[in-house]
Amino acid sequence: MAAKTDYELIYWPIPGRGEFIRLCFEHAGVSYVDTPGGIDQVMEYVSGDVDIGNNNIAFATPILKDNTNGVAIAQTPAILLYLSTRLGLSSDDEIQKIQIHQHALTALDLCSEAHNTHHPISANLYYEDQKVESERFSESFRNERIPKFLTHFETILSKNLKAQKKYLVGDHITYADYALWQVIDGLKFAFPKRMQTLLPDYKNINAFYDNIKSQDHMLSYLKSDRRLPYTDGIFRHYPELDAE
Amino acid sequence: MAAKTDYELIYWPIPGRGEFIRLCFEHAGVSYVDTPGGIDQVMEYVSGDVDIGNNNIAFATPILKDNTNGVAIAQTPAILLYLSTRLGLSSDDEIQKIQIHQHALTALDLCSEAHNTHHPISANLYYEDQKVESERFSESFRNERIPKFLTHFETILSKNLKAQKKYLVGDHITYADYALWQVIDGLKFAFPKRMQTLLPDYKNINAFYDNIKSQDHMLSYLKSDRRLPYTDGIFRHYPELDAE
Repeated sequence: MAAKTDYELIYWPIPGRGEFIRLCFEHAGVSYVDTPGGIDQVMEYVSGDVDIGNNNIAFATPILKDNTNGVAIAQTPAILLYLSTRLGLSSDDEIQKIQIHQHALTALDLCSEAHNTHHPISANLYYEDQKVESERFSESFRNERIPKFLTHFETILSKNLKAQKKYLVGDHITYADYALWQVIDGLKFAFPKRMQTLLPDYKNINAFYDNIKSQDHMLSYLKSDRRLPYTDGIFRHYPELDAE
Repeated sequence: MAAKTDYELIYWPIPGRGEFIRLCFEHAGVSYVDTPGGIDQVMEYVSGDVDIGNNNIAFATPILKDNTNGVAIAQTPAILLYLSTRLGLSSDDEIQKIQIHQHALTALDLCSEAHNTHHPISANLYYEDQKVESERFSESFRNERIPKFLTHFETILSKNLKAQKKYLVGDHITYADYALWQVIDGLKFAFPKRMQTLLPDYKNINAFYDNIKSQDHMLSYLKSDRRLPYTDGIFRHYPELDAE
């Protein structure tokens, strides 16, 4: 690509944590490139001593580069915070702004736990080498953690009468909404049986999920090749880890 | 306490994640109350439907209440972000501000992994009921994760020539520095053998740790009864999980 776009995302070729950021770009319709250097670039950027920009290094991806000013940052919540004010996905109200961050962080915690269902011991071991532990972790995740998180977000949506329970905070969509949407979508892929059992009891979350997905830009994004398949990423479907 | 203090922290009576926030209060010398209602208050606030303030609920503690304006928020990184501009622990420079958040988030990730060394399967089970998995998790944590995180922060410190490698970002102490200090302190308690083996190789981190600890307000805080013992919190010392 010859033209220099505003934003560059460096991440593995999976939805994973990069997806929280991609959804913000897609919402705003800004130009961005997604890891132009492929996996080699990812490996280089997380090698531990490569300057990703403004004298910064990254412990892990995703990494955001803002080509308009040279800013380079890692850590999903920091990237979302940075982008949100630029892409109209935050609030001018300070109290709402910090609540948006709170809710996004909670959605990201659920994402981390979803990762741990298939890697409870070490990210450096294959799933097959921690399968027994994965089954034990997943049982508790399915039975205790998913319902606890869903109840939490269901309650938050029910309290936001201002936006008729459509968004988590305030009267318009924010990065916290996209974060929650993405985690639910990922869980529907990874734990289809469990989610089919649970979701009917969460009517605000169901309406919220459908509402976000039905936006024109989301419909076209989800059909595009920019939306990557889940495959062997953070959200993985192992039938042996799922149950009604 | 009759006088209404500016800030109220609600957290379990352990250092844990509350400590990242307490260290900010102690740095600034502001008045705060630490969980005046004790464990009953914690249990009530994480029950899932209690309004913690400004129509917000919390998935978990810590929770911060700002009595000057009624703000109530959960999630450690969101609380730190909120407090940091008020307590002089952030930066006026937007790029530095977001880097501070990045580094604090990475230190908090290390804290979460330290928790998982003794609870790799479920926070709802006793350690004794996930001891085999804990030993397996801890081996990888000791041998791969701690060195990876230490190397990361050692490199960041070495790059910050502006503050003579004393702080992670910019020319003064921030909440990212206190977050890193606290995680290292917790790891020294939980994994004394491993940290004793590793730390001599990280000379910037050693100097950083000592420098922060030697501040007058830190010396008096660490001697005070406001500094809680580690006991059975996030940072736990189980000799069977430690090794050189």
